[in-house]
Amino acid sequence: MTPVGPEERRARAALTRILEPGDEQGGRWLHTCGAVALLELLAAPADSADEVRGRLAGATERRLDSYRARARRAVPERDLAAITGIGGRFVCPGDAEWPSQLDDLGTARPIGLWVRGGPDLRIWSLRSVAVVGARACTPYGAHMAASLGSGLAERGWVVTSGAAFGVDGAAHRGALAAGGATVAVLACGVDVVYPPGHAELVGRIVEQGLVVGELPPGDHPTRSRFVLRNRVIAALTRGTVVVEAEYRSGSLVTARCARRLGRYTMGVPGPVTSGLSAGVHELLRGEGTLVTDAAEVAELVGDIGELAPARKGPVLPRDLLDPLSARILEALPSRGAADRLDIARDAGAGEDEALGKLYELHSLGYVERRGDRWQLAARTRAETSARRGGARPGAIG
Amino acid sequence: MTPVGPEERRARAALTRILEPGDEQGGRWLHTCGAVALLELLAAPADSADEVRGRLAGATERRLDSYRARARRAVPERDLAAITGIGGRFVCPGDAEWPSQLDDLGTARPIGLWVRGGPDLRIWSLRSVAVVGARACTPYGAHMAASLGSGLAERGWVVTSGAAFGVDGAAHRGALAAGGATVAVLACGVDVVYPPGHAELVGRIVEQGLVVGELPPGDHPTRSRFVLRNRVIAALTRGTVVVEAEYRSGSLVTARCARRLGRYTMGVPGPVTSGLSAGVHELLRGEGTLVTDAAEVAELVGDIGELAPARKGPVLPRDLLDPLSARILEALPSRGAADRLDIARDAGAGEDEALGKLYELHSLGYVERRGDRWQLAARTRAETSARRGGARPGAIG
Repeated sequence: MTPVGPEERRARAALTRILEPGDEQGGRWLHTCGAVALLELLAAPADSADEVRGRLAGATERRLDSYRARARRAVPERDLAAITGIGGRFVCPGDAEWPSQLDDLGTARPIGLWVRGGPDLRIWSLRSVAVVGARACTPYGAHMAASLGSGLAERGWVVTSGAAFGVDGAAHRGALAAGGATVAVLACGVDVVYPPGHAELVGRIVEQGLVVGELPPGDHPTRSRFVLRNRVIAALTRGTVVVEAEYRSGSLVTARCARRLGRYTMGVPGPVTSGLSAGVHELLRGEGTLVTDAAEVAELVGDIGELAPARKGPVLPRDLLDPLSARILEALPSRGAADRLDIARDAGAGEDEALGKLYELHSLGYVERRGDRWQLAARTRAETSARRGGARPGAIG
Repeated sequence: MTPVGPEERRARAALTRILEPGDEQGGRWLHTCGAVALLELLAAPADSADEVRGRLAGATERRLDSYRARARRAVPERDLAAITGIGGRFVCPGDAEWPSQLDDLGTARPIGLWVRGGPDLRIWSLRSVAVVGARACTPYGAHMAASLGSGLAERGWVVTSGAAFGVDGAAHRGALAAGGATVAVLACGVDVVYPPGHAELVGRIVEQGLVVGELPPGDHPTRSRFVLRNRVIAALTRGTVVVEAEYRSGSLVTARCARRLGRYTMGVPGPVTSGLSAGVHELLRGEGTLVTDAAEVAELVGDIGELAPARKGPVLPRDLLDPLSARILEALPSRGAADRLDIARDAGAGEDEALGKLYELHSLGYVERRGDRWQLAARTRAETSARRGGARPGAIG
């Protein structure tokens, strides 16, 4: 894949303001014309509408009017400056950080993702699981979501959710509480706090994890954006666990999408007498797998050999690691496990920064999490001892 | 199959007092020697032990001593008189009432069944479902068991269980409360009330349904008899639903047995946080099907084409029906449904007697239950109209 040039990035940033998430017709045009040409066509003055319709299969006049109005208001330089201003970035297909599993969405693939937080989205997504469910969950649902969030984090899995009230929030908090990794996928700009009551939670996720979304800075959520956001959660992760959902709920959209994409779909059962478990039971009577704890989730999603580098040893040569990751790796003891605070100190890194890198290194198969501590993976250990002793360099396969 | 002669019946009755339920070695001997010869061998005096061991493969001296002691105490005439005295009967393989699906148990097939209650065990078992679960169930488990019991009964299914406290009792009561059919399979003599607290319930089942067991009158339950009773519940029914069960519980034995026998195994989920649902969830993570109400159970077990005569029309020619069944059938209106009390009155039958026959006729495909009322099955209706009008006799296929 060719690196993304500034023109392409600028055009894609503008397109996230013009096309709604998941617009498959727009996705086809993007595929056919490329981002720069598509932006030109959508922004073209009204008197060239006939020519534009000739180039964009199926475009109606009304649709083009709406795109043109949006294109007029799009100032991608300002959006890109805004995201940089809050320490974020705009990640495009072709970027090293682009999570290639999003390509499974085909023409519904996001145009780009607005990202806040230190870790590498692509690497984190390699070992991530979605935990989603009802906003108006019961105490049982909140308990299960938090316990799955913590349990998955403790097993070195990244917990991805939608930052909503109820199950989503409990899952994020569970992961954070376990000193773990979590990704929030928003249905609005990553600088917009929605729901407002989750300002502190989302702020904490920006510090310790990743907050991502398809919508440009300042954009607000709508009903359809919530629904379409779910496909990103499904595609980014290896599997989706639904904790409490009514019939026809948005969480079931995520689960069905996950299944279509070949991801695992899982559900946490509850009392049959609770309407909030009815959707989950419907899922479990179909192709969903019943799970009762984080160990069962990890066992299931950990089975995909080709996506599970940790099970086969490192996939990225050590020499290609970024300097901070290399320092973190050096800070791990040859034997036994260490606390992440000690690792951060020895590597001269911030606590959250170190945590982000540790999860990246876990995804890459270099390290493992054991409860609250981190250690070198078995296959890394031999190589590290050899390096440190100056002997047998490159002993691992 | 040849009809069961009095010698054979007497020998089998004696053997139920000598061999423990599910004794597979005994089952092999029974298969090889026949009941009469096997009884003679087991009752033979100690000085012919060598000859006996020659005939009974694998018999140890100690085992034979124990059988001989039991054989000395067995008085089958008294047991057969006792069961007749309380209005019951002893049903053997070869009897018209023998439920042939018990043959699936192979060498673990019951030697015979002691039966109390009016209906025909074989015919009732054609459309029966087991509902089993924990004795110390939660109010949730009791509620679900009762609601499955009622719902299945309302759909014309016979509810089979073990008459234990908790889930079993609630399932029986649910069926009875809906004016439905229920079978209790005991781990003791059918004249022994166990648990004592269920005296009234078991008495009611004898009136309105069937109480059956492998053990002769007066015999008491033991731990292993409880476990082995479960295989009879599994084999008698088209499927087993587990409502609340801890890990390693007896209900899971029933479910596993049902699966081995090619029956459906189902489970009602509950909160993951409840230890009483842990066994059910284990089952559902295996090959069990999650069910949330009676409709889902009926949908599943109703699918077995060859066992579901109701779906294909009557399997037994009308002329072979016993006189009371024929009267009940005549008492049903040509159109619409009738209350079972009216049907009983018009047929000149007792209320429970009529109910028993209605469920038999349902199993045979002649009638259907609609809520609390009964009607002719669609395919019977045409024939009945024709008969009553005197035209087109035998119009149904």
